[in-house]
Amino acid sequence: MLSEFDLIKQYFVQDYPENPRFPLGIGDDCALLQPHPNRQMAISSDMLVSGRHFFPDADPTMLGHKCLAVNLSDLAAMAAKPLAFTLALSLPEANRAWLSAFSAGLLNLAREHDCRLIGGDTTKGPLTICITIFGELPPASALRRDAAQVGDDIWISGNLGDARLALAAYNNEVSLSAAAHQQAAIRMHQPTPRIALGIALRGIAHAALDISDGLMGDLGHILNASQVGACLHVDRLPAGPVLGLENQALRREFTLAGGDDYELCFTAPVSQRAAVLAAGVASQTELTRVGRIEQASGLRLIDESGAAIVLDLKSFDHFTSP
Amino acid sequence: MLSEFDLIKQYFVQDYPENPRFPLGIGDDCALLQPHPNRQMAISSDMLVSGRHFFPDADPTMLGHKCLAVNLSDLAAMAAKPLAFTLALSLPEANRAWLSAFSAGLLNLAREHDCRLIGGDTTKGPLTICITIFGELPPASALRRDAAQVGDDIWISGNLGDARLALAAYNNEVSLSAAAHQQAAIRMHQPTPRIALGIALRGIAHAALDISDGLMGDLGHILNASQVGACLHVDRLPAGPVLGLENQALRREFTLAGGDDYELCFTAPVSQRAAVLAAGVASQTELTRVGRIEQASGLRLIDESGAAIVLDLKSFDHFTSP
Repeated sequence: MLSEFDLIKQYFVQDYPENPRFPLGIGDDCALLQPHPNRQMAISSDMLVSGRHFFPDADPTMLGHKCLAVNLSDLAAMAAKPLAFTLALSLPEANRAWLSAFSAGLLNLAREHDCRLIGGDTTKGPLTICITIFGELPPASALRRDAAQVGDDIWISGNLGDARLALAAYNNEVSLSAAAHQQAAIRMHQPTPRIALGIALRGIAHAALDISDGLMGDLGHILNASQVGACLHVDRLPAGPVLGLENQALRREFTLAGGDDYELCFTAPVSQRAAVLAAGVASQTELTRVGRIEQASGLRLIDESGAAIVLDLKSFDHFTSP
Repeated sequence: MLSEFDLIKQYFVQDYPENPRFPLGIGDDCALLQPHPNRQMAISSDMLVSGRHFFPDADPTMLGHKCLAVNLSDLAAMAAKPLAFTLALSLPEANRAWLSAFSAGLLNLAREHDCRLIGGDTTKGPLTICITIFGELPPASALRRDAAQVGDDIWISGNLGDARLALAAYNNEVSLSAAAHQQAAIRMHQPTPRIALGIALRGIAHAALDISDGLMGDLGHILNASQVGACLHVDRLPAGPVLGLENQALRREFTLAGGDDYELCFTAPVSQRAAVLAAGVASQTELTRVGRIEQASGLRLIDESGAAIVLDLKSFDHFTSP
């Protein structure tokens, strides 16, 4: 079956001649354009489909927040400063209550990040939301997926797995108390884009991306793009506060192959440990060191004793996942 | 009922402080960003939904062409030069034959205009295509909707109505020979973005837009934004070659309130008539002078004898049209 990445690679990736005005095309969190030698723009587009990315009856305020948050998260992962966005919206009907709540959730987060809504499109159709976001950064300061170096530490912002745990509870895969479910669900519905952290990591981190489809798969993109491997301390992964109360098997599964985390995974040289921790403090973001980039390709999972663990976990794929 | 424009105005237009880096926000063919004092970017986003903007069994090559063409047309209407675009694609399944044909139609047109595909998103869901396009132009050279001046001529590129006639034939509202239907359908499926004309009109034309929802309604946007009125010679409107064989009532209806034309409607001072015609020749685009911008608000339709005509025609609206 054709995976999402194969689909893009086979049908849409073009072999364009090198041109300094196009520093980076398909395959990272954002594309980069350089309209002027002193200025780069980071651009990302995300489409959210009802019934696929959110429940059809999702709270529209939280949905508005989330649509923009996932795009802001892509800017964060490139170390770009938010500038503006466009919104294309397909709606089954023009419902005033829904529109009012949706636009409030969207525009409140936009204001927080000084990110202007500059245009877009509206049409009738199945509920679908497509945001394209624009950020700015100085040339050569982007945190790209292909920049990890052997010996780099691997870091994770915040914590992982509570969004996936909330989804599991909605789907009756696990049982949570109402309070626990509510707390975990905040992480699913209201992700926090790590904009300040991304900018603070300019010149300090090497590679970065945001974790949206599960850490293992997403870290795999850094490893492939950078042509390196890694060793990951599975039991040092920062589990969300609700997931932290669950058993080890679930903690491992949902921190490694959850989804919807929107935390940053980045690599930085050992010599920058103090600078990384300072960036965390400056951006009020907890950071955890969870592994190391290595020469040998592939991802090796180890437990606290240093013994290898084999886990059969799959990252989410839109076309091959059930 | 809430119209598309009211919906945008009430829920999404924000009152941002003036800032030279944001020359133009919501409401024109494109938004403008000015990341550097010497460089503006024109940005437009269009979402096409299966069953709404195209038939679910639409030829994928033509669909790929059309999705990009409607976005290029927005750049043309601002006099911007195409630079790059993102593609967000929701697909019911990853079908190789469909993807191969769709990407060929899309990327062939992109190559023609030297417009790079730099990123986007793919997901499973109802067939929906959202393209966000980026063009470049020198500061202060954009052809904006609010720039029409009293006394300006009104011009139309190419011809109007064949796309609407083809749709009418698909819907059995009119009867066409197979050959005539096929010819008209090309205009519906394969619109020609007027990029070269738009660029040639820099410094010559005042206001411009592309006609996508019907001339009367679209010209109305120029009149509203520029706070002027206009007089339009209905029987001088250039009908498409297939529509030209139909009766006067249908010619008038489909040139005035068709849709899917993707021709430019622009205004230019009388003193620039020779320059306008030269721009048409240089860009190999037929141009027709069809009316005049006037002080008195409103749009007045007149026939060849100069007598007023009253026609009850409505522009297409995604939320109030049937």
